[in-house]
Amino acid sequence: MSDVVRPDLAAMTVRLSRALMAAEEPVLAAHGITMWAYAVLTALVGGPASSQQVLAERIGADKTRIIPTLDALQQQGLLDRVPDPEDRRLRTVTITPAGRQLQQAVCAQIQRQEEAMLTVLPPARRREFLAALQQLSALPSADLVDRLRGAGHVG
Amino acid sequence: MSDVVRPDLAAMTVRLSRALMAAEEPVLAAHGITMWAYAVLTALVGGPASSQQVLAERIGADKTRIIPTLDALQQQGLLDRVPDPEDRRLRTVTITPAGRQLQQAVCAQIQRQEEAMLTVLPPARRREFLAALQQLSALPSADLVDRLRGAGHVG
Repeated sequence: MSDVVRPDLAAMTVRLSRALMAAEEPVLAAHGITMWAYAVLTALVGGPASSQQVLAERIGADKTRIIPTLDALQQQGLLDRVPDPEDRRLRTVTITPAGRQLQQAVCAQIQRQEEAMLTVLPPARRREFLAALQQLSALPSADLVDRLRGAGHVG
Repeated sequence: MSDVVRPDLAAMTVRLSRALMAAEEPVLAAHGITMWAYAVLTALVGGPASSQQVLAERIGADKTRIIPTLDALQQQGLLDRVPDPEDRRLRTVTITPAGRQLQQAVCAQIQRQEEAMLTVLPPARRREFLAALQQLSALPSADLVDRLRGAGHVG
Protein backbone atom coordinates (compact mmCIF):
# COMPACT_ATOMS: atom_id res chain seq x y z
CA MET A 1 0.00 0.00 0.00
CA SER A 2 2.79 2.46 0.78
CA ASP A 3 4.46 2.31 -2.63
CA VAL A 4 3.05 4.62 -5.26
CA VAL A 5 3.00 2.35 -8.31
CA ARG A 6 2.27 5.16 -10.76
CA PRO A 7 1.22 8.81 -10.56
CA ASP A 8 -2.52 9.43 -10.98
CA LEU A 9 -3.59 9.53 -14.61
CA ALA A 10 -5.20 12.92 -13.95
CA ALA A 11 -1.92 14.40 -12.66
CA MET A 12 -0.06 13.15 -15.74
CA THR A 13 -2.62 14.32 -18.31
CA VAL A 14 -2.99 17.73 -16.64
CA ARG A 15 0.77 18.21 -16.68
CA LEU A 16 1.01 17.18 -20.31
CA SER A 17 -1.97 19.37 -21.26
CA ARG A 18 -0.34 22.43 -19.71
CA ALA A 19 2.86 21.91 -21.67
CA LEU A 20 0.95 21.28 -24.91
CA MET A 21 -1.17 24.42 -24.47
CA ALA A 22 1.86 26.54 -23.57
CA ALA A 23 3.49 25.37 -26.79
CA GLU A 24 0.39 26.25 -28.84
CA GLU A 25 0.32 29.85 -27.66
CA PRO A 26 3.08 31.26 -29.90
CA VAL A 27 1.64 29.41 -32.93
CA LEU A 28 -1.82 30.83 -32.29
CA ALA A 29 -0.42 34.31 -31.62
CA ALA A 30 1.55 34.19 -34.88
CA HIS A 31 -1.72 33.52 -36.70
CA GLY A 32 -3.61 36.19 -34.73
CA ILE A 33 -6.15 33.89 -33.10
CA THR A 34 -6.92 32.80 -29.55
CA MET A 35 -7.12 29.27 -28.14
CA TRP A 36 -10.93 29.49 -28.11
CA ALA A 37 -11.03 30.75 -31.69
CA TYR A 38 -8.89 27.81 -32.77
CA ALA A 39 -11.16 25.41 -30.86
CA VAL A 40 -14.20 26.89 -32.62
CA LEU A 41 -12.65 26.64 -36.09
CA THR A 42 -11.49 23.08 -35.40
CA ALA A 43 -14.98 22.10 -34.24
CA LEU A 44 -16.42 23.45 -37.51
CA VAL A 45 -13.97 21.72 -39.87
CA GLY A 46 -16.00 18.51 -39.78
CA GLY A 47 -19.27 20.30 -40.58
CA PRO A 48 -21.51 23.25 -39.60
CA ALA A 49 -23.07 23.54 -36.14
CA SER A 50 -26.87 23.80 -36.13
CA SER A 51 -26.76 26.50 -33.43
CA GLN A 52 -24.31 28.45 -31.29
CA GLN A 53 -25.42 26.34 -28.33
CA VAL A 54 -24.59 23.11 -30.17
CA LEU A 55 -21.19 24.54 -31.11
CA ALA A 56 -20.50 25.54 -27.50
CA GLU A 57 -21.32 22.02 -26.31
CA ARG A 58 -19.09 20.54 -29.01
CA ILE A 59 -16.07 22.38 -27.60
CA GLY A 60 -17.08 22.06 -23.94
CA ALA A 61 -17.61 25.79 -23.33
CA ASP A 62 -20.46 28.01 -22.12
CA LYS A 63 -22.38 29.63 -24.96
CA THR A 64 -21.96 33.11 -23.41
CA ARG A 65 -18.24 32.51 -23.23
CA ILE A 66 -17.81 31.87 -26.95
CA ILE A 67 -20.12 34.59 -28.34
CA PRO A 68 -17.36 37.27 -28.38
CA THR A 69 -15.09 34.72 -30.10
CA LEU A 70 -17.76 34.02 -32.74
CA ASP A 71 -18.26 37.77 -33.27
CA ALA A 72 -14.52 38.26 -33.81
CA LEU A 73 -14.21 35.26 -36.15
CA GLN A 74 -17.16 36.44 -38.24
CA GLN A 75 -15.66 39.94 -38.46
CA GLN A 76 -12.39 38.38 -39.68
CA GLY A 77 -14.35 36.47 -42.34
CA LEU A 78 -13.43 33.09 -40.84
CA LEU A 79 -16.99 31.89 -40.14
CA ASP A 80 -20.59 32.68 -41.09
CA ARG A 81 -23.74 32.66 -38.95
CA VAL A 82 -26.99 32.20 -40.86
CA PRO A 83 -30.47 32.24 -39.23
CA ASP A 84 -32.13 28.82 -39.39
CA PRO A 85 -35.14 29.23 -41.79
CA GLU A 86 -37.22 26.86 -39.58
CA ASP A 87 -36.42 28.60 -36.28
CA ARG A 88 -35.17 32.16 -36.65
CA ARG A 89 -33.89 32.18 -33.05
CA LEU A 90 -31.21 29.67 -34.06
CA ARG A 91 -28.18 30.46 -36.18
CA THR A 92 -26.27 27.86 -38.13
CA VAL A 93 -22.50 28.37 -37.79
CA THR A 94 -20.31 27.50 -40.78
CA ILE A 95 -16.58 27.82 -41.40
CA THR A 96 -15.58 29.89 -44.46
CA PRO A 97 -12.86 28.83 -46.94
CA ALA A 98 -10.53 31.39 -45.29
CA GLY A 99 -11.37 29.91 -41.89
CA ARG A 100 -10.64 26.43 -43.13
CA GLN A 101 -7.32 27.54 -44.58
CA LEU A 102 -6.28 29.22 -41.33
CA GLN A 103 -7.33 26.20 -39.25
CA GLN A 104 -5.29 23.89 -41.48
CA ALA A 105 -2.19 26.08 -41.26
CA VAL A 106 -2.37 26.29 -37.46
CA CYS A 107 -3.24 22.62 -37.06
CA ALA A 108 -0.34 21.52 -39.27
CA GLN A 109 2.13 23.54 -37.22
CA ILE A 110 0.73 22.36 -33.88
CA GLN A 111 0.79 18.73 -34.92
CA ARG A 112 4.33 19.08 -36.26
CA GLN A 113 5.33 20.28 -32.78
CA GLU A 114 3.45 17.46 -31.14
CA GLU A 115 5.07 14.87 -33.38
CA ALA A 116 8.49 16.24 -32.43
CA MET A 117 7.65 15.74 -28.76
CA LEU A 118 6.40 12.21 -29.44
CA THR A 119 9.75 11.20 -30.92
CA VAL A 120 10.96 10.60 -27.34
CA LEU A 121 8.74 7.50 -27.37
CA PRO A 122 9.74 4.25 -29.10
CA PRO A 123 7.64 3.86 -32.30
CA ALA A 124 5.33 1.08 -31.03
CA ARG A 125 4.64 2.93 -27.77
CA ARG A 126 3.96 6.12 -29.66
CA ARG A 127 1.46 4.37 -31.94
CA GLU A 128 -0.36 2.74 -29.01
CA PHE A 129 -0.32 5.99 -27.03
CA LEU A 130 -2.02 7.88 -29.85
CA ALA A 131 -4.51 5.07 -30.45
CA ALA A 132 -5.36 4.92 -26.73
CA LEU A 133 -5.81 8.69 -26.48
CA GLN A 134 -8.07 8.70 -29.52
CA GLN A 135 -10.09 5.81 -28.16
CA LEU A 136 -10.51 7.38 -24.70
CA SER A 137 -11.17 10.91 -25.90
CA ALA A 138 -13.77 9.65 -28.41
CA LEU A 139 -15.95 8.33 -25.56
CA PRO A 140 -18.79 10.73 -24.74
CA SER A 141 -17.86 12.87 -21.68
CA ALA A 142 -20.75 11.49 -19.63
CA ASP A 143 -19.60 7.93 -20.42
CA LEU A 144 -16.07 8.68 -19.30
CA VAL A 145 -17.19 10.22 -16.03
CA ASP A 146 -19.79 7.50 -15.38
CA ARG A 147 -17.25 4.81 -16.06
CA LEU A 148 -14.82 6.46 -13.66
CA ARG A 149 -17.41 7.19 -10.97
CA GLY A 150 -19.03 3.79 -11.23
CA ALA A 151 -15.82 2.20 -9.97
CA GLY A 152 -15.54 4.73 -7.16
CA HIS A 153 -18.55 3.27 -5.38
CA VAL A 154 -16.92 -0.15 -5.17
CA GLY A 155 -14.38 0.85 -2.53
CA MET B 1 -3.88 18.34 -46.35
CA SER B 2 -7.65 18.54 -45.98
CA ASP B 3 -8.05 15.29 -44.05
CA VAL B 4 -7.62 15.58 -40.31
CA VAL B 5 -5.47 12.54 -39.58
CA ARG B 6 -5.92 12.79 -35.82
CA PRO B 7 -7.21 15.38 -33.36
CA ASP B 8 -4.53 17.56 -31.74
CA LEU B 9 -2.86 15.88 -28.76
CA ALA B 10 -3.70 18.94 -26.67
CA ALA B 11 -7.42 18.65 -27.44
CA MET B 12 -7.43 14.98 -26.47
CA THR B 13 -5.44 15.36 -23.26
CA VAL B 14 -7.50 18.39 -22.16
CA ARG B 15 -10.73 16.47 -22.73
CA LEU B 16 -9.44 13.46 -20.82
CA SER B 17 -8.11 15.66 -18.00
CA ARG B 18 -11.51 17.29 -17.55
CA ALA B 19 -13.26 13.93 -17.23
CA LEU B 20 -10.61 12.62 -14.83
CA MET B 21 -10.84 15.71 -12.63
CA ALA B 22 -14.65 15.65 -12.62
CA ALA B 23 -14.49 12.04 -11.46
CA GLU B 24 -12.04 12.93 -8.67
CA GLU B 25 -14.32 15.57 -7.17
CA PRO B 26 -16.73 13.27 -5.29
CA VAL B 27 -13.81 11.20 -3.96
CA LEU B 28 -12.05 14.31 -2.67
CA ALA B 29 -15.30 15.71 -1.25
CA ALA B 30 -15.98 12.43 0.57
CA HIS B 31 -12.59 12.78 2.26
CA GLY B 32 -13.09 16.48 3.00
CA ILE B 33 -10.19 17.80 0.94
CA THR B 34 -9.83 19.98 -2.15
CA MET B 35 -8.01 19.19 -5.39
CA TRP B 36 -5.15 21.51 -4.37
CA ALA B 37 -4.91 19.89 -0.93
CA TYR B 38 -4.66 16.49 -2.56
CA ALA B 39 -1.98 17.78 -4.95
CA VAL B 40 0.00 19.14 -1.98
CA LEU B 41 -0.23 15.89 -0.01
CA THR B 42 0.71 13.86 -3.08
CA ALA B 43 3.73 16.10 -3.71
CA LEU B 44 4.90 15.49 -0.12
CA VAL B 45 4.53 11.70 -0.12
CA GLY B 46 7.93 11.27 -1.78
CA GLY B 47 9.68 13.55 0.76
CA PRO B 48 9.52 16.95 2.50
CA ALA B 49 9.72 20.23 0.55
CA SER B 50 12.56 22.50 1.64
CA SER B 51 10.28 25.58 1.39
CA GLN B 52 6.73 26.55 0.52
CA GLN B 53 8.07 28.02 -2.73
CA VAL B 54 9.71 24.71 -3.68
CA LEU B 55 6.46 22.90 -2.90
CA ALA B 56 4.45 25.34 -5.04
CA GLU B 57 6.81 24.77 -7.96
CA ARG B 58 6.58 21.02 -7.53
CA ILE B 59 2.81 21.13 -8.08
CA GLY B 60 2.87 23.90 -10.70
CA ALA B 61 1.05 26.51 -8.60
CA ASP B 62 1.73 30.04 -7.36
CA LYS B 63 3.01 30.14 -3.78
CA THR B 64 0.32 32.66 -2.76
CA ARG B 65 -2.33 30.35 -4.18
CA ILE B 66 -1.38 27.39 -2.00
CA ILE B 67 -0.77 29.20 1.33
CA PRO B 68 -4.45 28.96 2.42
CA THR B 69 -4.37 25.27 1.48
CA LEU B 70 -1.24 24.73 3.57
CA ASP B 71 -2.83 26.58 6.50
CA ALA B 72 -5.92 24.35 6.31
CA LEU B 73 -3.88 21.14 5.99
CA GLN B 74 -1.73 22.08 8.97
CA GLN B 75 -4.83 22.87 11.03
CA GLN B 76 -6.20 19.42 10.13
CA GLY B 77 -2.94 17.85 11.30
CA LEU B 78 -2.10 16.58 7.81
CA LEU B 79 1.19 18.44 7.38
CA ASP B 80 3.80 20.29 9.44
CA ARG B 81 5.76 23.43 8.65
CA VAL B 82 9.04 23.83 10.53
CA PRO B 83 11.35 26.87 10.22
CA ASP B 84 14.63 25.97 8.53
CA PRO B 85 17.35 26.35 11.25
CA GLU B 86 19.78 27.74 8.64
CA ASP B 87 17.37 30.30 7.17
CA ARG B 88 14.45 31.17 9.44
CA ARG B 89 12.55 32.76 6.54
CA LEU B 90 12.13 29.32 4.98
CA ARG B 91 9.81 26.63 6.30
CA THR B 92 10.26 22.95 5.55
CA VAL B 93 6.94 21.30 4.74
CA THR B 94 6.46 17.67 5.81
CA ILE B 95 3.49 15.33 5.57
CA THR B 96 2.27 13.83 8.88
CA PRO B 97 1.35 10.15 9.33
CA ALA B 98 -2.35 11.19 9.22
CA GLY B 99 -1.69 13.10 6.00
CA ARG B 100 0.05 10.11 4.48
CA GLN B 101 -2.85 7.85 5.45
CA LEU B 102 -5.42 10.22 3.92
CA GLN B 103 -3.39 10.61 0.73
CA GLN B 104 -3.13 6.83 0.36
CA ALA B 105 -6.86 6.32 0.85
CA VAL B 106 -7.77 8.98 -1.72
CA CYS B 107 -5.10 7.85 -4.17
CA ALA B 108 -6.23 4.22 -3.97
CA GLN B 109 -9.82 5.16 -4.76
CA ILE B 110 -8.86 7.51 -7.59
CA GLN B 111 -6.58 4.95 -9.20
CA ARG B 112 -9.25 2.25 -8.85
CA GLN B 113 -11.57 4.53 -10.84
CA GLU B 114 -8.88 5.22 -13.40
CA GLU B 115 -8.14 1.53 -13.84
CA ALA B 116 -11.85 0.91 -14.46
CA MET B 117 -11.81 3.50 -17.25
CA LEU B 118 -8.65 1.98 -18.73
CA THR B 119 -10.35 -1.42 -19.13
CA VAL B 120 -11.82 -0.08 -22.40
CA LEU B 121 -8.32 -0.43 -23.84
CA PRO B 122 -6.84 -3.76 -24.93
CA PRO B 123 -4.18 -4.84 -22.34
CA ALA B 124 -1.12 -4.13 -24.50
CA ARG B 125 -2.42 -0.71 -25.50
CA ARG B 126 -3.23 0.11 -21.90
CA ARG B 127 0.28 -0.83 -20.78
CA GLU B 128 1.93 1.26 -23.52
CA PHE B 129 -0.43 4.17 -22.87
CA LEU B 130 0.53 4.28 -19.19
CA ALA B 131 4.21 3.87 -19.98
CA ALA B 132 4.07 6.68 -22.55
CA LEU B 133 2.23 9.02 -20.18
CA GLN B 134 4.74 8.35 -17.42
CA GLN B 135 7.64 8.89 -19.79
CA LEU B 136 6.24 12.17 -21.17
CA SER B 137 5.05 13.58 -17.86
CA ALA B 138 8.41 12.79 -16.24
CA LEU B 139 10.18 15.19 -18.61
CA PRO B 140 10.86 18.55 -16.96
CA SER B 141 8.19 21.10 -18.01
CA ALA B 142 10.74 23.35 -19.66
CA ASP B 143 12.04 20.39 -21.69
CA LEU B 144 8.56 19.48 -22.87
CA VAL B 145 7.76 23.02 -23.97
CA ASP B 146 11.19 23.54 -25.56
CA ARG B 147 10.91 20.29 -27.43
CA LEU B 148 7.47 21.29 -28.69
CA ARG B 149 8.43 24.87 -29.54
CA GLY B 150 11.69 23.87 -31.16
CA ALA B 151 9.79 22.06 -33.87
CA GLY B 152 7.46 25.02 -34.38
CA HIS B 153 10.25 27.09 -35.87
CA VAL B 154 10.89 24.57 -38.61
CA GLY B 155 7.73 25.36 -40.54
